[in-house]
Amino acid sequence: MAVYTDVSEVELEAFLSDYPAGRLLSYKGIAEGSENSNFLLHTSSGAYILTLYEKRVERDDLPFFLALMQHLAGKGISCPLPVKRRDGEVIGMLAGRPAALITFLEGMWMRRPTAGHCREVGRALAGLHLAGMDFPLVRRNALGLDGWHRLWQESRPRAHEVEPQLAAEVDEDLAVLGRQWPAGLPAGIIHADLFPDNVFFLGEELSGLIDFYFACNDLYAYDVATCLNAWCFEKDFSFNATKGRALLAGYQAVRPLSPAEKAGLPILARGSALRFMLTRLYDWLTIPDGELIRKRDPMEYIRRLRFHRTIRSPLEYGLE
Amino acid sequence: MAVYTDVSEVELEAFLSDYPAGRLLSYKGIAEGSENSNFLLHTSSGAYILTLYEKRVERDDLPFFLALMQHLAGKGISCPLPVKRRDGEVIGMLAGRPAALITFLEGMWMRRPTAGHCREVGRALAGLHLAGMDFPLVRRNALGLDGWHRLWQESRPRAHEVEPQLAAEVDEDLAVLGRQWPAGLPAGIIHADLFPDNVFFLGEELSGLIDFYFACNDLYAYDVATCLNAWCFEKDFSFNATKGRALLAGYQAVRPLSPAEKAGLPILARGSALRFMLTRLYDWLTIPDGELIRKRDPMEYIRRLRFHRTIRSPLEYGLE
Repeated sequence: MAVYTDVSEVELEAFLSDYPAGRLLSYKGIAEGSENSNFLLHTSSGAYILTLYEKRVERDDLPFFLALMQHLAGKGISCPLPVKRRDGEVIGMLAGRPAALITFLEGMWMRRPTAGHCREVGRALAGLHLAGMDFPLVRRNALGLDGWHRLWQESRPRAHEVEPQLAAEVDEDLAVLGRQWPAGLPAGIIHADLFPDNVFFLGEELSGLIDFYFACNDLYAYDVATCLNAWCFEKDFSFNATKGRALLAGYQAVRPLSPAEKAGLPILARGSALRFMLTRLYDWLTIPDGELIRKRDPMEYIRRLRFHRTIRSPLEYGLE
Repeated sequence: MAVYTDVSEVELEAFLSDYPAGRLLSYKGIAEGSENSNFLLHTSSGAYILTLYEKRVERDDLPFFLALMQHLAGKGISCPLPVKRRDGEVIGMLAGRPAALITFLEGMWMRRPTAGHCREVGRALAGLHLAGMDFPLVRRNALGLDGWHRLWQESRPRAHEVEPQLAAEVDEDLAVLGRQWPAGLPAGIIHADLFPDNVFFLGEELSGLIDFYFACNDLYAYDVATCLNAWCFEKDFSFNATKGRALLAGYQAVRPLSPAEKAGLPILARGSALRFMLTRLYDWLTIPDGELIRKRDPMEYIRRLRFHRTIRSPLEYGLE
């Protein structure tokens, strides 16, 4: 639920005059995305998303995110394309915030994805990994092992408010992940947040990937593990191996996983579940109830963590 | 800020299959309107607004509101047109709520309206009054004098939390309004909530009127008075007589006010300011801070009330 900053028609029209985007016909604040303010614009040349970057996205990283979208779109990945201003820049200022105008992608995100959708997501993720291989910019993953330790230090004193035994569980997770995190796996540009609300479909066909604001350089198989967490658990927290199989098969049809990547999946999936648990926990404990942000329950990822701790073989995820 | 109910693509596609509205391409929850959940849809046949009616709008009144939009659109008023289902109905059910699909109007609402905009609003309001004259359904104004007394009974015990002297002020207002409310003025269909966010412009041209969910039968001049409150005060609560003059001239160019309507404006404007003060006050005191509703400050209307109490002649509003 977002729209933290309203924009007047006067300032928006002034902003748009720098872009070859036609005449403004309408704009509506949309209730999607949890980090930025987003507006859906209609102009005489089509539909666009206008994003105002609020504090959480570091301004220094915007050139990386926007150049990545341009790069991927140029490689044929269906993702939003930042519109260049007449001076060649893609980042402007609006209402005191950095802002970008990007093309609007039609499609719906799947509230109830099927195994067929999971297969398409796997294919698209592998395509993204391949398309990013010659992207020249680099961004380290701020939410990797180091970042988890920092988040945990902030939340640990109050973690029992969410779950009594959580501190002991997570201390153990971090120790295990520190010892067993796989070294030397293939790495490059990853999406790092490819949840169902960031993947659009038209019917059974994947029509686009959005929200590259966590993209960074990290292990490809870690991105796969995040998708297993995001797409293959049911509402009762059971792992749906049919969906896992479909997602992994889709991925491997485009980019086969190496034996070392396969062997690493359980620890990567555990790390990925911990990462989302930790950011949710941090928000849960620190964001006041009155804020217009929907806080997401960290328990959903504690449950996933507990599942991954029990995994003895990557075959349990549906690898073939 | 609205979107209280999310809708899955599966249930939305099932819902849309009853309408001749093409193939669904995308839908986004939009952060406008404070009573209902609204989605902006793109389909192969165009753009639509999907509204899910949450509790505040009485279900029994929906046929009135939707028939009124159909009637006004048929008379050439630019307002959303409810799309008829294949069975001829305009109200369906979605996610357990009554829901309607209406055409999308391009245009922007003016965060900073000018006197030119006020003139156009005046013209449009008069056009709406004329177009509604042969509308056959009737809905009494639930937020008329009786409704104000009820709202005030609920809020009076805590009114001092907002402003120490408020109880005495409002007691006096209600007494005066009860004695002086004008009888026998021309009445018919009024919009009753024609604030800037319910009026769209493309450039200087008014492109549409929306949100008929307070429409009812009441005095036309009361609707004019509400527009004076909504459009002609500056952020410092000063009344802008240039805007008042433009709004009234625009209105009278289409439907001249009778001498009795003109004479009634001060008391009607005072009543209208009290009406918006009372609903804001009630929300202010009763809606928990954690709710995803932006509460609006009742003080803005206490200030208007104080202005209207000082008016000695309707000429002060800019009548010519």
